[in-house]
Amino acid sequence: MNLVTLDDIAAAAERVAGHAVRTPLVAAPWADRPLWIKPESLQPVGSFKIRGAFNAVAGIDPQRRARGVVAYSSGNHAQAVAYAARAFGVPAWIVVPEDTPRVKVEATRAHGAEVVLVKTGERESAAYAIVEREDATLVPPFDDRAVIAGQGTIGLEIVADLPDVDLVLAPVSGGGLISGIAAAIKALRPQAQVWAVEPELAGDTAASLAKGELVSWSVADRNRTIADGLRSQPSELTFGHQRALVDGIVTVSEDEIRSAVATLAHRAHLVAEPSGAVTTAAVLHHGDKLPPGRTVAVLSGGNVDPDALVALLQS
Amino acid sequence: MNLVTLDDIAAAAERVAGHAVRTPLVAAPWADRPLWIKPESLQPVGSFKIRGAFNAVAGIDPQRRARGVVAYSSGNHAQAVAYAARAFGVPAWIVVPEDTPRVKVEATRAHGAEVVLVKTGERESAAYAIVEREDATLVPPFDDRAVIAGQGTIGLEIVADLPDVDLVLAPVSGGGLISGIAAAIKALRPQAQVWAVEPELAGDTAASLAKGELVSWSVADRNRTIADGLRSQPSELTFGHQRALVDGIVTVSEDEIRSAVATLAHRAHLVAEPSGAVTTAAVLHHGDKLPPGRTVAVLSGGNVDPDALVALLQS
Repeated sequence: MNLVTLDDIAAAAERVAGHAVRTPLVAAPWADRPLWIKPESLQPVGSFKIRGAFNAVAGIDPQRRARGVVAYSSGNHAQAVAYAARAFGVPAWIVVPEDTPRVKVEATRAHGAEVVLVKTGERESAAYAIVEREDATLVPPFDDRAVIAGQGTIGLEIVADLPDVDLVLAPVSGGGLISGIAAAIKALRPQAQVWAVEPELAGDTAASLAKGELVSWSVADRNRTIADGLRSQPSELTFGHQRALVDGIVTVSEDEIRSAVATLAHRAHLVAEPSGAVTTAAVLHHGDKLPPGRTVAVLSGGNVDPDALVALLQS
Repeated sequence: MNLVTLDDIAAAAERVAGHAVRTPLVAAPWADRPLWIKPESLQPVGSFKIRGAFNAVAGIDPQRRARGVVAYSSGNHAQAVAYAARAFGVPAWIVVPEDTPRVKVEATRAHGAEVVLVKTGERESAAYAIVEREDATLVPPFDDRAVIAGQGTIGLEIVADLPDVDLVLAPVSGGGLISGIAAAIKALRPQAQVWAVEPELAGDTAASLAKGELVSWSVADRNRTIADGLRSQPSELTFGHQRALVDGIVTVSEDEIRSAVATLAHRAHLVAEPSGAVTTAAVLHHGDKLPPGRTVAVLSGGNVDPDALVALLQS
């Protein structure tokens, strides 16, 4: 399989500069190992998704791009594509299930996108229908080399800020984030390990890596976790990256995720959504399964409803 | 008066590099003006104080420094001096009132400092007694050129990241933070304005600037605000900087501060202590009094008790 290269990622870094925030490493002296948090929650759309979406939209031929971009997502990818489309001054259609919380629909509309509400299960077909009708371009959430390369810019920044990093932890769902990060880290610092973290209740990637082939879990099963950004499954492309580049995976419980959200707020002064807190949960509760050393936990996003946040901080 | 210079601040930037986090500007598209937050809450000690304390400790003659440093503070300066002392491998004595919350005492001890508990009102005399006994060096919280220069590194970073900044807002209490920032901003971008923000209930600096001389408010009056980091008064040195360099001041109410803490958590994914949220409160509630344009609000710190944070997020 043709993996994303360091050159792809370096090109993405040039494109996203000035649009994605250059997030710092935030020291976490409250952990029992040298730990830094990489807070992607500080991105303009509240998650790392801006990096991949922006790089993908930037890479579309300008004449074609002018006809617009399309995405299907109820979450962070939707806002990221809408943001990138507006930055390039082109239309965006975002297809979301009709039961998506109004707050997320409004956030996507606020970036200037046209939100198309459809029945659950009809997202992909509706998105492709718009692509055909408008001759627009689909921006996939993870199954795309430009998206993976964009997320990989996180890996470049980690090595620049902490050249002797030993371990990088990233959440895994569709796998675009960890694929990009692993491609960057393994190219720049091969002796560092890259581990994935996943909710137990959506542990399809752990099962797949254990079996050596993609294992599918039902949507109903994956939707049990509160980590609503981690309910997707890898594609062949992202699974191929993981088999080649990822050193291990740990799963975390729902209580561990909740507790990590509270710890990040109270000790690191960072608001994480549950999906973004899984890496911290792994360090705090499963450190014995992880290799030792200087560790970076990628906090992937901070988009959590106000009421849910208050409840999580009391857990 | 001999004001802190750009050279002083540039030298401080070299010293604090690798110890203070290079905080990013976080876009805040939810405001009704172009706004970025500078989150000093992400510093190792949870506040900007690390910059000034580290620069001050770094500037002490090494032989003298080896005998140790002393500070009196119940808050963020205590942790910052303790952190800096440990970085240089020298002892630190931190004098705090005996009614200081245990959580803050423990945080200071966790940085390796010896915490000396004294009666309220005896902090300064106790600190000077230790300075004499140990032949150690006092690190003042704000009335010190090295401390001011360290805080000024925030101004350097703002202009580097947003060269066409129009307005910088910083909280004011003892005045070290705004003095340093204003010295940097006015040297690098004279056409930008620097405004101070203060709680109405501790509005001694607003009163002083209006009168053109230092006005003293009672401790009891200043202690009414929930912004517990903003209960000090300027010194001649910091007031001199403000008269020369600061363009204006606005005061904010307690409700406005509470509401800004909630907005920062829910919209910017940042945990601010009340003192750190006053600049955002000024933008959200007193924008009509401020000059227009590209605005940076300095979020000075994030050290807030867990229970207090939960209460603030529900306000």
